[in-house]
Amino acid sequence: MRTSLCDTFGIDYPIFAFTPSEHVAAAVSRAGGLGVLGCVRFNDTDELERTLTWLDDNTDGKPYGVDIVMPMKIPTEGTSADLSAYIPEDHKRFVDQTLLELGVPPLPEGEGREGVLGWLHSVARSHLDVALNHRPVLIANALGSPPVDVIEKAHEHGVKVAALAGAAKHALRHVENGVDIIVAQGYEAGGHTGEVASMVLTPDVVDAVGPDVPVLGAGGIGSGRQVAASLALGAQGVWTGSIWLGTEEYRNLASNRGWETAFLRATSSDTVRTRIYTGKPARLLKTRWTEAWASQDAPEPLPMPLQNLLVAEAHNRINASHDPDVISMPIGQVVGRMNAVRPVADVVASLVEEYDEAVARLETYRK
Amino acid sequence: MRTSLCDTFGIDYPIFAFTPSEHVAAAVSRAGGLGVLGCVRFNDTDELERTLTWLDDNTDGKPYGVDIVMPMKIPTEGTSADLSAYIPEDHKRFVDQTLLELGVPPLPEGEGREGVLGWLHSVARSHLDVALNHRPVLIANALGSPPVDVIEKAHEHGVKVAALAGAAKHALRHVENGVDIIVAQGYEAGGHTGEVASMVLTPDVVDAVGPDVPVLGAGGIGSGRQVAASLALGAQGVWTGSIWLGTEEYRNLASNRGWETAFLRATSSDTVRTRIYTGKPARLLKTRWTEAWASQDAPEPLPMPLQNLLVAEAHNRINASHDPDVISMPIGQVVGRMNAVRPVADVVASLVEEYDEAVARLETYRK
Repeated sequence: MRTSLCDTFGIDYPIFAFTPSEHVAAAVSRAGGLGVLGCVRFNDTDELERTLTWLDDNTDGKPYGVDIVMPMKIPTEGTSADLSAYIPEDHKRFVDQTLLELGVPPLPEGEGREGVLGWLHSVARSHLDVALNHRPVLIANALGSPPVDVIEKAHEHGVKVAALAGAAKHALRHVENGVDIIVAQGYEAGGHTGEVASMVLTPDVVDAVGPDVPVLGAGGIGSGRQVAASLALGAQGVWTGSIWLGTEEYRNLASNRGWETAFLRATSSDTVRTRIYTGKPARLLKTRWTEAWASQDAPEPLPMPLQNLLVAEAHNRINASHDPDVISMPIGQVVGRMNAVRPVADVVASLVEEYDEAVARLETYRK
Repeated sequence: MRTSLCDTFGIDYPIFAFTPSEHVAAAVSRAGGLGVLGCVRFNDTDELERTLTWLDDNTDGKPYGVDIVMPMKIPTEGTSADLSAYIPEDHKRFVDQTLLELGVPPLPEGEGREGVLGWLHSVARSHLDVALNHRPVLIANALGSPPVDVIEKAHEHGVKVAALAGAAKHALRHVENGVDIIVAQGYEAGGHTGEVASMVLTPDVVDAVGPDVPVLGAGGIGSGRQVAASLALGAQGVWTGSIWLGTEEYRNLASNRGWETAFLRATSSDTVRTRIYTGKPARLLKTRWTEAWASQDAPEPLPMPLQNLLVAEAHNRINASHDPDVISMPIGQVVGRMNAVRPVADVVASLVEEYDEAVARLETYRK
């Protein structure tokens, strides 16, 4: 499975793996794909610095990428404490009451009150500065085009920039801003996602940006058949995320022991697209937590970045409870295909092998 | 493009074309696919009888299919007049007021008051009886498994039965009931559709039903690349619908002159999944009509079959108004790819040619 992106990045397979775990990212890169480390969880830039140094040392010299979360327009800014003032009391009460009803215990005194700050523009910028002192070959932005000066800075360091798009018109705007690679993120994807499904979105984006801009198909990719489908639609590679949450290497990061129980039993119908995670529509595992927010008396989610601050402590409490029925986790519809925990290298090998089988099958249909 | 379904049905290409137009159905069958005539619009069985006789005479002896709308469980039954008694006055007032606000004129006295009765079980049964006196090779049911006696009756006539499924568990139930072919109808599809997108649903269904039950991929299929993607996912053929609404042959049936303007300008983001057409979730073109039903003060849609009776006259008025901004039309996200009105034979030829190109491209990636 080789496309021109393999030459661009010096990789064996055009399999791009978004993951919050440096262990997964390193294993994907070592296996011939491109591991892309999600930076949003690093509130502490020193920790990101140490993690990227670890990646430098554990990828056998193979390339890797980083993923930041940076809106083009700078949103409400400030410390977590400042911003809390904008969160309505009714929302806080709903969260407290819901956790009580779901039987999620409070955290021990003094633990885990802080939210994820990576959604803040200033923090995302510091992630970028730290990353550019290492050797990423790709910076991906989960919220579309980063600001133009960020793209230019990446290019000065010889680093390519990828941006997620949920519609062809967004992809065109990214290309105008100087983005090199478009990730066409279909409706079925985990995390932030739009309304158009991969089967329609991928060729839409490919045709809109033209042959000079490579497109990665994202959303619904968990097997070699799905890789073949995405490349048939015109993608030059695939952007994957969910499937790496079901690997042995991810266990190093998994903060919720109930998580494996939850995804092993989930079908592709057990996800929901909702604004409750960050304030923008994102696909999560459907659990008692998401169901509570879908009830008649639940408040409307707040805009980004307030919603994530609102639920940050709740997420920490939920993770500490290890209850598979109450999980708050971005995941794509492909969760239905995650039926065993495997080493990353096995997953990569299966994707490549199944791709070849699928193409051989399609070839027989031409006769 | 040949799979085992070509031998099963005596067709050249595993392209199944659902259409309410006998002109489109005949043209698809003549071009080597399988035209499948939607029967739901025929309130008058004599008209269906005449239409199927026309199909018999205009398909050059090539096979065709029919599509009925029959729930497994028999819903509220009765004449249109009986059922009207169950429709709340508030709903009727909302429809009247909305049409007024959208500038849709009333119909001339005595015209088009009757709704579509094909949603009624008794009417769907009469469609089946009429069809079996002709030579369909396939009966498809848009609402999943038809009742078991209907499946058995079809089999006695040597006719295969296909059923739509939006989740793997529904597909398994259809197979248990004796259905021969599953149409895996993805989220992006026009008309009745579920939550799981084709990229995930097709392999889910293929793996669930096993190698002995052919699966047709449906939802998002409007180009040969999309056909290749669907077959890569494990489908043995594709079920298409939307794209035939953009053909010259469809003009024989098009009751709304604004329709071509509307779909030629629509992008893949211009559809919406809503219960306002039949009471069950169905994807429609997003227009001022669907937006009105999405407003805060709109009532909840009624259950099937009441919702369609509620809006039946409104649909007739909307069609008679020829206003491209106010259309009530089931259509898939693939509408964004419908950018020219072409003869059916050209569309079929493009699908086949692009399939071959896509597979040849995938083959180069194996090197």
